[in-house]
Amino acid sequence: MNVHIVTGGAGFIAVTLIGRLLDRGDRVLAVDDLSRGRREYLAAYEGRNGFGFAQVDCTDCDALIAAIRAFGTADQVWHLAANSDIPAGVADAKVDLQQTFMTTFATLEAMRVLAIPQMHFASSSAIYGDLGDRRIAEDAGPTSPISNYGAMKLASEAQISAAVEAWLERADIFRFPNVVGVPATHGVILDFVRKLKATPTVLPVLGDGTQRKPYLHVSELVDAMLYIAQTAQGRRNLFNIGPDDTGVTVRSIAETVRDRVSPTAKLEFGQGNRGWVGDVPRFSYSIDQLAQLGWRPALDSAGAIRRATDEIARQEE
Amino acid sequence: MNVHIVTGGAGFIAVTLIGRLLDRGDRVLAVDDLSRGRREYLAAYEGRNGFGFAQVDCTDCDALIAAIRAFGTADQVWHLAANSDIPAGVADAKVDLQQTFMTTFATLEAMRVLAIPQMHFASSSAIYGDLGDRRIAEDAGPTSPISNYGAMKLASEAQISAAVEAWLERADIFRFPNVVGVPATHGVILDFVRKLKATPTVLPVLGDGTQRKPYLHVSELVDAMLYIAQTAQGRRNLFNIGPDDTGVTVRSIAETVRDRVSPTAKLEFGQGNRGWVGDVPRFSYSIDQLAQLGWRPALDSAGAIRRATDEIARQEE
Repeated sequence: MNVHIVTGGAGFIAVTLIGRLLDRGDRVLAVDDLSRGRREYLAAYEGRNGFGFAQVDCTDCDALIAAIRAFGTADQVWHLAANSDIPAGVADAKVDLQQTFMTTFATLEAMRVLAIPQMHFASSSAIYGDLGDRRIAEDAGPTSPISNYGAMKLASEAQISAAVEAWLERADIFRFPNVVGVPATHGVILDFVRKLKATPTVLPVLGDGTQRKPYLHVSELVDAMLYIAQTAQGRRNLFNIGPDDTGVTVRSIAETVRDRVSPTAKLEFGQGNRGWVGDVPRFSYSIDQLAQLGWRPALDSAGAIRRATDEIARQEE
Repeated sequence: MNVHIVTGGAGFIAVTLIGRLLDRGDRVLAVDDLSRGRREYLAAYEGRNGFGFAQVDCTDCDALIAAIRAFGTADQVWHLAANSDIPAGVADAKVDLQQTFMTTFATLEAMRVLAIPQMHFASSSAIYGDLGDRRIAEDAGPTSPISNYGAMKLASEAQISAAVEAWLERADIFRFPNVVGVPATHGVILDFVRKLKATPTVLPVLGDGTQRKPYLHVSELVDAMLYIAQTAQGRRNLFNIGPDDTGVTVRSIAETVRDRVSPTAKLEFGQGNRGWVGDVPRFSYSIDQLAQLGWRPALDSAGAIRRATDEIARQEE
């Protein structure tokens, strides 16, 4: 039986991850400051054997150490706490400094003090910046992030890498694509669903709809994370996680949401191929390394969008 | 006439840079908290037309803004402030967090507030981590630093890159090799010279002496920085700066210093090919991109070591 700490433990991805860990019979302490995560997402796990929750701001190393000590020991941390609002981080660099990087810095420090040997880290395709049309493998460079979010995810990767050299036994670094599913807290599908609920006749779209990105369903993302944690052998394991395609356009997502929520609505597009500063207009991921390890997603980007659209439409009913 | 802010302005590299900028007739404000830099290094510039000094901790954004406003306007910042003691940063991660990264974060914030359009940044080969025997070009990846110093330099690069997307007009990122010369404040040559002054008969060397690294003389480094600032055309200019060779070994440096300072001393080597945690045992730099821009160093690594050894021996007399 393993004992896991999950930071950002009341967030979108943690909810699925924690369920899977508890189903294996492991113990899990979810840690969250509830600034973005919501305690009710974890309602199904409350009172379950081996589950604990602590309301802690992970930039507060001492509070994090105390919460872990109160829960007992732990042998691994899934570090998911981060800012999830990229435009907010572009408007104020302190948002990603604190929520995306200092959470990592303090979590590492707590792990060092408590001698917790393994970290699994939710990094992001945003660390690559805009590398144009090339298919991006893990060794692509130079990494020139175009958002503070991407910058502070890269800073986190770097700090974790240095920790592996000095004292951390092992780190898995997962570079996430866009992830969709429920409980949806942010993102393009939720945005479209809510807009159509408010005004069923028209769906305004930021940008010209040509942005193209890969999407993965959260259930498959968590599959991949658990697979890598179990299967990879290195001390620093760095993996792109994503679908094996070049993604879908914003236009196609808008059409999928319209067809599900309000089929007669008219789509209205804006200008330019960037939705906001720091938005990468297109990218294409190589998941060859993950495929070589033995894992491939079942859904492509379009399939992930369809499944998530249906789930989010029901969530918002 | 340009107006320059130089952070870490009383440090090793700044002393040479500032002299060159003043010689061009530019105005220069040196900013330093004097925790590692020393005011006396700047003695030759005090009272010179266009030179100013402010004792400011660059992590204090408000103080930095006030100092720049008191000097007048500025159109570019040379951001050299950083921790220079890599082992100290490995022992306590907060050292590089504060001195290597938060100086960058706060300096950028001050530049944004003051609308200073250009930053030149002293990054490091340490951002690459240990990439083995390959010849490292700027697009090499993945960048997995093995010291907190390297991690926080990479974090700084990332934050600067995001700033270029959002508001900064231009950034030059220089990835320095090992740099030697005077005023020597730290580093292997100074260490050897001082050891031999204390005990002229024997020179103990950390590690087995097989570590091999490229070295550049500070005068040539500053040449290259000024050349890139003047010549490169992009908004994000990322350059390795170094000699065009695979470097010299620690053994060879020890011999050079011994021959200059105490020719009869016996060299005593330790174990292993890493001097300390976070020390990359060897690396080889590609400077093809800089050569293509039109700049090459005159000295090779061995030449830089010989010149610096002579200068440092005289400094320590």
